Amino acid sequence: MTAPKPSLVEPRTLKGFQDHHPADAKRRLDLIQRVRPLVESFGFVPIETPAVEYLDTLLGMGGEGANKELFRFLSPEDEPIALRFDLTVPFARLLAQYPAELGLPFRRYAFGPVFRADKPGPGRYRQFTQFDFDHAGSADVAVDAEICAVMCGAMRLLARVPFRLHVNSRRVVDAVMLGCGIAEPERQRHVLRVIDKLDKVGADNVRRELGAGRIDESGDPIRGVGLDPEVIARIEQFLAIAATTRQGVIDAVAGAVPASRELDEALAELRELAAAMDALGIAEQEAAFDPSLARGLDYYTGPVFEMKLPESPQFGTVMGGGRYDGLVSRFSTASIPATGASIGLDRLLAALEATGAFAGEPSTVQVQVVTFRGVDRARYLALASELRGAGISTEIYFGKKKASITDQLSHANSRGIPVAIIAGTDEFDRGEVSIKDLRAGAAAREGIADRESYRDAGKAGQRTIARRDMIAEVRALLQRAG
Amino acid sequence: MTAPKPSLVEPRTLKGFQDHHPADAKRRLDLIQRVRPLVESFGFVPIETPAVEYLDTLLGMGGEGANKELFRFLSPEDEPIALRFDLTVPFARLLAQYPAELGLPFRRYAFGPVFRADKPGPGRYRQFTQFDFDHAGSADVAVDAEICAVMCGAMRLLARVPFRLHVNSRRVVDAVMLGCGIAEPERQRHVLRVIDKLDKVGADNVRRELGAGRIDESGDPIRGVGLDPEVIARIEQFLAIAATTRQGVIDAVAGAVPASRELDEALAELRELAAAMDALGIAEQEAAFDPSLARGLDYYTGPVFEMKLPESPQFGTVMGGGRYDGLVSRFSTASIPATGASIGLDRLLAALEATGAFAGEPSTVQVQVVTFRGVDRARYLALASELRGAGISTEIYFGKKKASITDQLSHANSRGIPVAIIAGTDEFDRGEVSIKDLRAGAAAREGIADRESYRDAGKAGQRTIARRDMIAEVRALLQRAG
Repeated sequence: MTAPKPSLVEPRTLKGFQDHHPADAKRRLDLIQRVRPLVESFGFVPIETPAVEYLDTLLGMGGEGANKELFRFLSPEDEPIALRFDLTVPFARLLAQYPAELGLPFRRYAFGPVFRADKPGPGRYRQFTQFDFDHAGSADVAVDAEICAVMCGAMRLLARVPFRLHVNSRRVVDAVMLGCGIAEPERQRHVLRVIDKLDKVGADNVRRELGAGRIDESGDPIRGVGLDPEVIARIEQFLAIAATTRQGVIDAVAGAVPASRELDEALAELRELAAAMDALGIAEQEAAFDPSLARGLDYYTGPVFEMKLPESPQFGTVMGGGRYDGLVSRFSTASIPATGASIGLDRLLAALEATGAFAGEPSTVQVQVVTFRGVDRARYLALASELRGAGISTEIYFGKKKASITDQLSHANSRGIPVAIIAGTDEFDRGEVSIKDLRAGAAAREGIADRESYRDAGKAGQRTIARRDMIAEVRALLQRAG
Repeated sequence: MTAPKPSLVEPRTLKGFQDHHPADAKRRLDLIQRVRPLVESFGFVPIETPAVEYLDTLLGMGGEGANKELFRFLSPEDEPIALRFDLTVPFARLLAQYPAELGLPFRRYAFGPVFRADKPGPGRYRQFTQFDFDHAGSADVAVDAEICAVMCGAMRLLARVPFRLHVNSRRVVDAVMLGCGIAEPERQRHVLRVIDKLDKVGADNVRRELGAGRIDESGDPIRGVGLDPEVIARIEQFLAIAATTRQGVIDAVAGAVPASRELDEALAELRELAAAMDALGIAEQEAAFDPSLARGLDYYTGPVFEMKLPESPQFGTVMGGGRYDGLVSRFSTASIPATGASIGLDRLLAALEATGAFAGEPSTVQVQVVTFRGVDRARYLALASELRGAGISTEIYFGKKKASITDQLSHANSRGIPVAIIAGTDEFDRGEVSIKDLRAGAAAREGIADRESYRDAGKAGQRTIARRDMIAEVRALLQRAG
């Protein structure tokens, strides 16, 4: 009698989570690696906090975090804990916890996974990666301009298609509301929430919600703000303002909205922001003032930013941010002015991928060394060391013992490895190797139907060279391929 | 009557978890960034899997993972899930889940946080970072040599003190046990577990446990293996074998252990491993065969590796790994031979830090621009852009509005920023800036007690230069400082 075998576990990814295969994982790492020097060049320094926090840290005593769906559990000490849902709350915790060590002003960047126990959907995951950079300790609008410069600089580095940073100002919107007689904070927030729905429900429904209200698709009534038609018209006029320059938008707002002290102050700040963005070399077509941008205005207290790809609107906002005063308010009575932005790494990568930013991207591995049975392994290892020493990433094929050359080259092709080095004992003894341009072989094969021609085409781009010329020949092939 | 203020949350780090402040966080990121090209040069490609897995994936149906303390919780669908405790099980899941897409052989690297709900202690955290690289799909010992080459290569890159990779072979140890008449698998595992305690309990206690057993400090009896004294002596003799070369150790083992088919085969493999390590340029003092290395022998099936710093034994093993055949056994009846290693990032960093690898490490931020009230922000922003454009990371001081020069320079000093640029409206108008070598100022101040001399010393290393010379002057100072 034999004991029953333990049954097998079905290998599966957790619902709503993602596995990143090599090409994808490489792009994620490389994106971070390319953005880091840019962010650091602006004086931001990294911090890293745990993926898990005490539940009260995340919720806030006022329950500010309660609208996020959290993965909650218990610590070994039975304390309520949860996976972090963003990187801002842990940053605020750090500032409040180590005021002397960190000091102000403080520019930090951080990246890593954040978690939401939401209903997953297309492009909507329960674990995703954010890359945040924030400046704490200054209310100077020049810092907001620096945040915009980092966002635009990152897109210049990464995107091969036009991008546009939309910038709006909570203070200008507040002044417009005041000018329209909307003074009560709760009423102001209601207006902001309604404007925020513009993209989702359309202009007509926004107009109805600003007025008497409307009935939604399910037949439920939606309470309106109750504004007069002429006030609504004025707000709509403000939202529609556009111009080819940032200064042009400011002038148009000044002309369209009744003057007030609040508006003067808000526009003066916006002029400073425009001048600062100019000084930082942000082109007009890279960043525009956009009064219709409302997302997050309810949360932010000054300028707000959203980065979009005009040619790929389906990806929505790939970076977003703004100025917020209440950074540490859940931990401390101190008020720390702060501004910053967050790159949604998953969404940005999807957008870059869709717009061809990664087309023709080379494989990580540049050379595959084909191995034959019976040849001293040390010879292959020394050959690979020679290539690696010259900065050429090299995989020696060690797999099934009986793998044929064809098997091994198909392994290389499936991984997009551009060059193969082939050598048996005879070649090693003669001081020679065969070098094969795998892309030439693939190109020659295209469109060939019969087996024999196909096999001959596979030999395209293969030739025998002296071992001492190997590095130079591989470099030449890689250069042509790259 | 005013509503009671919501009370504040106490900012605190979760018990057993770590916050990484900037200098520390930067080292962590830079270490990964330096190791990646090395690992990639050997053909390893990255993958990334979620921090959370289904509980059965982690436990295995045989309960292999049950000895790890897991952070367990429920998914929104009420399925048992848990935070991953290592990167090997998710790798195995990936291989089993996507056999066609990934293919074999497959070399992957991965890094990220792993979680254990253990009792925390000094240097023992509930979240820590691993950097793993593994090769799946070949039993060739040349691959084990490549794993050793990556481990040694990483230490060459990172460590300023001697390192030593200890290598042992499960097959040799098995052959020695067989030669001693220890043939029964459960008895063999018992012997391995006892040898494994060598570092912890000492040679005398190991001898007792290999024999009749012993009474531990708490008075509890520990069952012995029950070996005869001459067998124990032979095992001790084997464990004590050392030589200045890997070949020397092999010869000593061959001379000390009764010949058998199993030993011949195991030593032949070890000879191949030695030849492969030689071919990869691993020096004798970098990696030694060490029969006393027993950690993990119970789990591994072939060569095992442990990286140590001989001058800092207190940090123990900073990298470890070995060959294991059962990689996908919890998911599949297929057998995939695999070998690899894991870098314990936290422990390695602590060891590198303690051995001075980071002494005199420059700040991320190279220049701080001092700001004065009333000076057009655009002038500072343009100046900073000029520096950043030249590849010099630059922080403009935007903090408290009333921050004095002294405040601002002390901000720079506290962050280790080596150079300050100081300019007011007059300097800007004249096309000049003041450049200040902050390290010179700090050096001049050392040992000065009276206030006035201290202030004068603070002026050391400051001079006015033409704006057009700024980049060159900053570069000269950074070079001297670096």
